[in-house]
Amino acid sequence: MHLPEEVTICEVGPRDGLQNERVNVPTAGKIRLIEALAEAGIRVMEATSFVSPKWIPNLADAEDTLAGVRRREGVTYAALVPNLKGLERAVAAKVDEVVIFMSASESHNQKNINKSIAQALETYREVVARAKDAGLRLKAALSTCFGCPYEGDVNPSVVVRISEALIAMGVDEVGISDTTGMANPRQVHAMVSQVAERIPLENLSLHFHDTRGAGLANVLAGLEAGVTVYDGSVGGLGGCPYAKGATGNIATEDLVHMLHEMGVETGVDLLKLIECAKLAQDLVGRPLDARVSKVGPVNHRCSGAVHG
Amino acid sequence: MHLPEEVTICEVGPRDGLQNERVNVPTAGKIRLIEALAEAGIRVMEATSFVSPKWIPNLADAEDTLAGVRRREGVTYAALVPNLKGLERAVAAKVDEVVIFMSASESHNQKNINKSIAQALETYREVVARAKDAGLRLKAALSTCFGCPYEGDVNPSVVVRISEALIAMGVDEVGISDTTGMANPRQVHAMVSQVAERIPLENLSLHFHDTRGAGLANVLAGLEAGVTVYDGSVGGLGGCPYAKGATGNIATEDLVHMLHEMGVETGVDLLKLIECAKLAQDLVGRPLDARVSKVGPVNHRCSGAVHG
Repeated sequence: MHLPEEVTICEVGPRDGLQNERVNVPTAGKIRLIEALAEAGIRVMEATSFVSPKWIPNLADAEDTLAGVRRREGVTYAALVPNLKGLERAVAAKVDEVVIFMSASESHNQKNINKSIAQALETYREVVARAKDAGLRLKAALSTCFGCPYEGDVNPSVVVRISEALIAMGVDEVGISDTTGMANPRQVHAMVSQVAERIPLENLSLHFHDTRGAGLANVLAGLEAGVTVYDGSVGGLGGCPYAKGATGNIATEDLVHMLHEMGVETGVDLLKLIECAKLAQDLVGRPLDARVSKVGPVNHRCSGAVHG
Repeated sequence: MHLPEEVTICEVGPRDGLQNERVNVPTAGKIRLIEALAEAGIRVMEATSFVSPKWIPNLADAEDTLAGVRRREGVTYAALVPNLKGLERAVAAKVDEVVIFMSASESHNQKNINKSIAQALETYREVVARAKDAGLRLKAALSTCFGCPYEGDVNPSVVVRISEALIAMGVDEVGISDTTGMANPRQVHAMVSQVAERIPLENLSLHFHDTRGAGLANVLAGLEAGVTVYDGSVGGLGGCPYAKGATGNIATEDLVHMLHEMGVETGVDLLKLIECAKLAQDLVGRPLDARVSKVGPVNHRCSGAVHG
C-alpha cells in the first residue's frame, strides 16, 4: 500500500462548519476556536467567509473575527469570497488565501451561486487576477464533483475541464469536493487519476463528507492516488445540512488519527485537536459526531472485554 | 484500483449486535429480524450464540430463536459455540455453521474466555473434529488481531500462527477481527498479505469496528488485499460496549452501500436491508448510528444546496 509520507490538513470547521450550525457562535468563540486550532498544529484553515451575510448570517462577523485572531506564524488563514466585493473585504481583513467556489454541475451551480458554470468562471477570472495582484494564495472549491443532488452523476470530464480552466487563470489549488457525500473510493481514485493527467497532483486537494460512512475510505483512495491535501471539519462541525442528525464533513480528528496510525505525518497534535473538538461542541451546544473525540485515540486503551 | 467483483456479507447483528444491546429483545423480535435479513438477501448470518446464558443473557433463547426461524434455502445460519456442550446444543438446533472464538492476545484471551491461547486451541481441537463429523461448516473468530485494549500492539506473526493452527485443525474460515476499532488500513493490508502467505485468501474474512471512523477504509484495504468476506451488523447494532454512544461493528447497510457504489456485488437488496435496520432500531428502542439508513443511498437524492 503506497501512501504519501505526509499530508496537509486544511481545517474548514470555523467556516464550512459554523456556517451550517443552527447556533450563531459569538465572535469571541470563533476567535478562540481559530486560535486553538492553530495552537494544535493546523497550518491551513478556512477561518471565515466574505459571502454576503444575507446568505450566510452566521459569518456576518468575518472582519471582526479576523481582526481578533492573534495570527500565528506559518499558518495560512483563508476566507471564502464570492466576487470582487468579497475579495476587497478579504484583502482589507488581511487574509493569506481566498477560496472561490463553484459546482461541477450546472443545476447545483445555478441554485448555489445563481450562475452557469461559464458565468462563474468568467466572474472569477477578475477575482483571481486581483487576488494575485494582492499577493494572495488562491484555492477553488469545486462542489459536487462526485455526484449532484439534482442531476445525479457528474461527468469526470467536466471536472477536468473546469479544473484546467481554474488553474489556467491562476488558481493555486483546486479542491475536488464531494458536497453531499456521494463519492465512493473507486470513483475517487479514477477521478483523481483523470484530473491528474492534466493538472499536477500538488495543485489538487480533496474534500469529503462522511454522510454515508465512506469519508475516510475516500481519503484512503485519494492517498493511494497521490493527493496530499485534505479538508476536515473539527468535531465534524456543520453536520449535514440536508438531513437532521446526519454527518457532513469528515471530522478532522478522525482524519488525523487514521493518518497518524498509518504513519502519515500531518504536523497536528491529535490530543490538542480533540480539545478543539470539545471546544467546538461547547460553542455550538450540541453533541458532535466525531468518533475519535468520543473514544480517544488507539494509544489510549479502553477497557472491558466481549466476544467478537 | 483492483477490487474483487463480488463479496459475501456475513451479518452478525442478531448475535454480536443483540448480545451487546441493553435491551433484551423478545424471541419473536429476533426471529422477525433474522427472517427479514434473509429476505433482504443476506446469505450468511450469525443468528445466535450457545455461550452460557450466564455470560450472554440476551441470547439465552438460542434454541427457541432457531426453532422459530423459517429457514431459507441457500442461507447459512451460524451460531457461536464456546465448547463441546455449546456444540451439542448447536447441532440439536440444526445450525449450518458454528463459530468458535478466541483472541490473538494472551491477556484478552484470558479475560474473555479464561484460557491461554494454547489452551483455547486445545479445547477447540475436539469441538472442530465433532462439528466436522456433524457436517457443519466452521468459522473461527479471532479477536484483537489489530491491537489489544490490554496489551497494545499484537504481533502479526501470532495472528499467522493461530490462523494456521485453526485451519490445520479443520476450520473453514478464520475471521481476522478488529475487536475494539484499533485497525488502520495500512495495517490491514499488511496483515492480510502476511496471513495470505500461509493461508488461502478464500479462507479469510474480516471483521471491523467503526469505533474511530476508519471501518470502511479498513474494508477498502481488505478488498485491495483480496479478501472477499466481510462481517457487518445491521444498523450498527451493538454499538461499542466500551464507550457509551460510540460506534461498534460497521453497519451492514453502510458496507453494502459502499460496495455497490463501487460496483462490487453482494446479492443484498439495499433498500430491504435498510428496512431491517429500521426494524432493528424498533426492537432495541434506541436510535442506531448507521449512516445510509439515516440519509438513504446515493441514488435517493437529498435536496438543498450549500457552499462547499
